[in-house]
Amino acid sequence: MTQPSFDTQAFRTALGTFTTGVTIITAEAEDGTQVGVTANSFNSVSLDPPLVLWSLAKNAMSLPIFTETKHWNVHVLSAEQEPLSGRFASRGEDKFSGLVLDEGITEAPLLHDCTARFQCRTAFAHDGGDHIIFIGEVLAFDQSELPPLVFQSGQYALAARKPWEGVNLSSAEVPIECSYSEDLLGYLLGRAHFQMFNKMQDLLTKQELNDKQFFTLSVLCINDNLTLDEINAHIDYTGRSVTEDEMAQLTGRQLLALESNGDKPRYRMTADGREASLHQIAQAKAIEESLIDNLGAGEVMALKLLLKRAINSTDPGLPDLWSAVSEKQ
Amino acid sequence: MTQPSFDTQAFRTALGTFTTGVTIITAEAEDGTQVGVTANSFNSVSLDPPLVLWSLAKNAMSLPIFTETKHWNVHVLSAEQEPLSGRFASRGEDKFSGLVLDEGITEAPLLHDCTARFQCRTAFAHDGGDHIIFIGEVLAFDQSELPPLVFQSGQYALAARKPWEGVNLSSAEVPIECSYSEDLLGYLLGRAHFQMFNKMQDLLTKQELNDKQFFTLSVLCINDNLTLDEINAHIDYTGRSVTEDEMAQLTGRQLLALESNGDKPRYRMTADGREASLHQIAQAKAIEESLIDNLGAGEVMALKLLLKRAINSTDPGLPDLWSAVSEKQ
Repeated sequence: MTQPSFDTQAFRTALGTFTTGVTIITAEAEDGTQVGVTANSFNSVSLDPPLVLWSLAKNAMSLPIFTETKHWNVHVLSAEQEPLSGRFASRGEDKFSGLVLDEGITEAPLLHDCTARFQCRTAFAHDGGDHIIFIGEVLAFDQSELPPLVFQSGQYALAARKPWEGVNLSSAEVPIECSYSEDLLGYLLGRAHFQMFNKMQDLLTKQELNDKQFFTLSVLCINDNLTLDEINAHIDYTGRSVTEDEMAQLTGRQLLALESNGDKPRYRMTADGREASLHQIAQAKAIEESLIDNLGAGEVMALKLLLKRAINSTDPGLPDLWSAVSEKQ
Repeated sequence: MTQPSFDTQAFRTALGTFTTGVTIITAEAEDGTQVGVTANSFNSVSLDPPLVLWSLAKNAMSLPIFTETKHWNVHVLSAEQEPLSGRFASRGEDKFSGLVLDEGITEAPLLHDCTARFQCRTAFAHDGGDHIIFIGEVLAFDQSELPPLVFQSGQYALAARKPWEGVNLSSAEVPIECSYSEDLLGYLLGRAHFQMFNKMQDLLTKQELNDKQFFTLSVLCINDNLTLDEINAHIDYTGRSVTEDEMAQLTGRQLLALESNGDKPRYRMTADGREASLHQIAQAKAIEESLIDNLGAGEVMALKLLLKRAINSTDPGLPDLWSAVSEKQ
């Protein structure tokens, strides 16, 4: 962990380990030219008087305007505004094209759908090597409930917050002769999945469907008109497969219709089947909403992101249910 | 999203939405007194010359020392250093007690096991309202592979980074008549779980055990000497229960021993059972290690944190396997 000689690239990488939010800072020149830059050098300075700061490269094209005008707005970007971050980080001409601006208390452009906004007037500008440090007095601010975008080690990110009370499933120690721990990812994944599925199970019990029949309806809802083999290929990753008997129950209850013209018989959703499936989707969404209420919208976004990354990294080569759809269309 | 009057508490809350890392900044007075403060006001300023900044409250007890000495070290804390952050954020006397310090290039205390460290000399100190802004020239720095601690809206957090190439499971659109999407949390959780479990399945096939028998061995590994009912209470959340026949297979293969003195018969792990279980734990850990290689250690920590929060929020009142252990001991 020692860095003998001073290497600018290594310095930049080491600085990047300090996590930040992402802001866009905007101003308007006297001639009406609007400028905006993406910056993660923002930070708070003082509560009373209310001061914030950020740094702008001395070679930035917008420097003369930020130096000349006294007013600028800081926008703490929300997780959904990653594309906007990219747009204002580039040297493009029409960064504001198509953007609807809000009315601010100064002439500086005010973006919307941000996590927080600070409307500022320059209090001081200090030399900071290859950057100018702008310190601004905050004239007005506002905040939304949108989860913020995060930046760490050169990548966009989402924050998984840790409640102060801690997140323990049990306070007990694991016996020494056992190497299991509640921290084992496989255990956590299984328990989280089963507990969420149990909330779906109540509906399935009412619908008199087992889990494999639920998977089958889900598959056909996304990609209709499949043979039993095709359906089982799509649910193979669950470690289970649906039987002819279980399919016969679904056709008997007219949730599915069987079409057998020449080739292997194919299953199609009926209106009743689609309705049963809609109830299941509504239930899945209700479970998710309740988790958003408990964990926060940003945390559920982060959880989904991490699950997708885990799925991609453990994918055994599952047939792509969704891309099969677009090929058909 | 409008804030009519200026409210300091609301201002602090709005500032808090800007995500930061967490640093400890240390210095040593001429008389050898060591000081250190937790700060999230750190940020980079300039690459050439290498400059960083941070702000210290004017009423901080350590201000005279930071003003008098020219040298201070910035420590970007790792996710494991949350307790250290708390210690240096308080007004305690002996913040350095018990800490092993590394040898730095100046007299300023140098902590270890950090994500990154910057050894600095004050270049400028500017007035910043109720804070002083210290701008330091970086004399030396180093970096480890430890995932950094994050702070957002008053809570510690971990970052879930988003690779630049995006994280899509498929590029296809979902048909309009179907409300499913690959973004449904229940689907992602199920698929992630099943795909990870499939990597365990290879071992179970070799061991000639089904999933319920695997759950049973896991339960007894943590909490030995249980009746069939007790075992099933612990695996009930999986939606499955192990049968007398399946238990008879395990005793027949001498993975478990049956003890029936008077009361209901109880199952105990044998040496062979414990060995089979150890192989399973090793496999579970190998799966997790491979995910850490793919996603990053910080991301796997974040995933576990979020799964624990999801488990706590959907807990149907599962009997606590681990706390039963400590009661017995």
